[in-house]
Amino acid sequence: MMHKISTTEEAREFLDSIDTFLFDCDGVLWEGDRVLDGVRETLSLLRQTGKRILFVTNNSTKSRSMYLKKLVSMKIEATEEEIFGSAYATAYYVKNILDFPTDKKVYAFGDKGLKEELEAQNVTVCGIGEDNEPIDFDTLHTIKPDDSIGAVILGFDINLNYRKYAKAFTYLYHNPECTFIATNEDSTYPIHGTVYPGTGAIISPVITALGRRPIVMGKPEKPMIDCVVDKYHLDKNRTCMVGDRLNTDILFGINGGLKTLLVLTGISKEHEILDQDQPIKPDFYANALGDLYFLSQQQ
Amino acid sequence: MMHKISTTEEAREFLDSIDTFLFDCDGVLWEGDRVLDGVRETLSLLRQTGKRILFVTNNSTKSRSMYLKKLVSMKIEATEEEIFGSAYATAYYVKNILDFPTDKKVYAFGDKGLKEELEAQNVTVCGIGEDNEPIDFDTLHTIKPDDSIGAVILGFDINLNYRKYAKAFTYLYHNPECTFIATNEDSTYPIHGTVYPGTGAIISPVITALGRRPIVMGKPEKPMIDCVVDKYHLDKNRTCMVGDRLNTDILFGINGGLKTLLVLTGISKEHEILDQDQPIKPDFYANALGDLYFLSQQQ
Repeated sequence: MMHKISTTEEAREFLDSIDTFLFDCDGVLWEGDRVLDGVRETLSLLRQTGKRILFVTNNSTKSRSMYLKKLVSMKIEATEEEIFGSAYATAYYVKNILDFPTDKKVYAFGDKGLKEELEAQNVTVCGIGEDNEPIDFDTLHTIKPDDSIGAVILGFDINLNYRKYAKAFTYLYHNPECTFIATNEDSTYPIHGTVYPGTGAIISPVITALGRRPIVMGKPEKPMIDCVVDKYHLDKNRTCMVGDRLNTDILFGINGGLKTLLVLTGISKEHEILDQDQPIKPDFYANALGDLYFLSQQQ
Repeated sequence: MMHKISTTEEAREFLDSIDTFLFDCDGVLWEGDRVLDGVRETLSLLRQTGKRILFVTNNSTKSRSMYLKKLVSMKIEATEEEIFGSAYATAYYVKNILDFPTDKKVYAFGDKGLKEELEAQNVTVCGIGEDNEPIDFDTLHTIKPDDSIGAVILGFDINLNYRKYAKAFTYLYHNPECTFIATNEDSTYPIHGTVYPGTGAIISPVITALGRRPIVMGKPEKPMIDCVVDKYHLDKNRTCMVGDRLNTDILFGINGGLKTLLVLTGISKEHEILDQDQPIKPDFYANALGDLYFLSQQQ
């Protein structure tokens, strides 16, 4: 049963039942450049009462330290340890879940945040930055199978080109042992008040040519939750995923066996969750994250 | 009922029943750099007996004049009028079937062959060659909706980049009136004895981000057959598609309501067509195209 948190008692009871809060950021903490009302107060309240806070994002272009700068610039208190982006999740997965062989390399398609996180886990990365030059028909044959590549990892890459697609495809096509990972599958990339093709779009040439799907790390997929739970040794019953989208954030929490809270300050609207035909329902919902603070402070 | 052409009588009867032959090239006329046995003799025989010959290819990087050079280099007699590639088919479709407005432009993703064919039809093309420079996060916002773009056409483009994907997506996403066309959907691109990602792969980011499918011109889709039939005023009952692949060439012929002949010198093997569970069956099949000549010449 889904509960709307709208009274002081409901807010306090909810807060008492949870030890760890996983926050989606855009649409939950802020909208564009504006931090939403009561968000800073809610986060302070959680810290004061000893709750653990984690920020969970599908942005694979930024490392944790890069994402921390963004939070700080929004005047949201955070530490690097509290940030779990899909670049870090991917690196954590490769190192700790896959136990990646030290004599193998990863071929990656992505931005420097992904490279930074992989290298911080002592994983040897090739591709990022090196392969930005286009290729032509005459030199295409120089792209050959390479058994030293143990995994191909695809993330958002604004410097994508055919050289990179042909390499990623070739390493996977000729070596069934090569692990195929995507940082996330968001089909669009929201920026500047509009959208452009997202990670899920730009990685699709490799999937289409191969006819084989990757392990997907970002929300709503389970590997990312597995990494979060593994790293922080969380009690799933006392952990809540807080988000603004049913089909990513809330589904992510459900897939991971966590409690879920939907806030109505972003994408998903109240009529959607009340719709009988909506299969994805949060455990709790509230008008805004700030309500947890405002309601709990009332007499 | 499927017939194998293996006697002189069968070969002659088949030849008598057809006026126009549509030929797939690779695997039918040649294999790699070698023209298959009896192919030149078969084509000469068809010309001597007044048959019409058309070469139908999914290669969208070459214009008809460029493809003619390839046929000539293989010592296969042909004229530009006999060549029907997916670049030309696309241009023909835009001009003659869509009746493209003269005040609108096409944004195209492709090679110079596509540009050449579109311009030969007096269609204004932008994108090809101009957008080869990568884009960065800071200038991404300069890509904006543009209502002067009446169609987005995606073909094989070895100079693909995020600038092109973002433009193609933006023009289509913000303008439901904008026509979306792909030259073909082959998922892999065979070259140098191996394969790399094909047109169907590299166009998939736009499809994935949009959640909308293009009109597809190449084999096995119907628009290409419609163009061929429209241009040459063919009698479908006396036209035969000759190919080496069930799921492209033969399906193409079936989709277009033509007769079909599979030759066993390429991809599809005899056991596949004899398989009870195979839904795509040609009307006729033969060990090789050259058999039409060798069998028909026997006493």
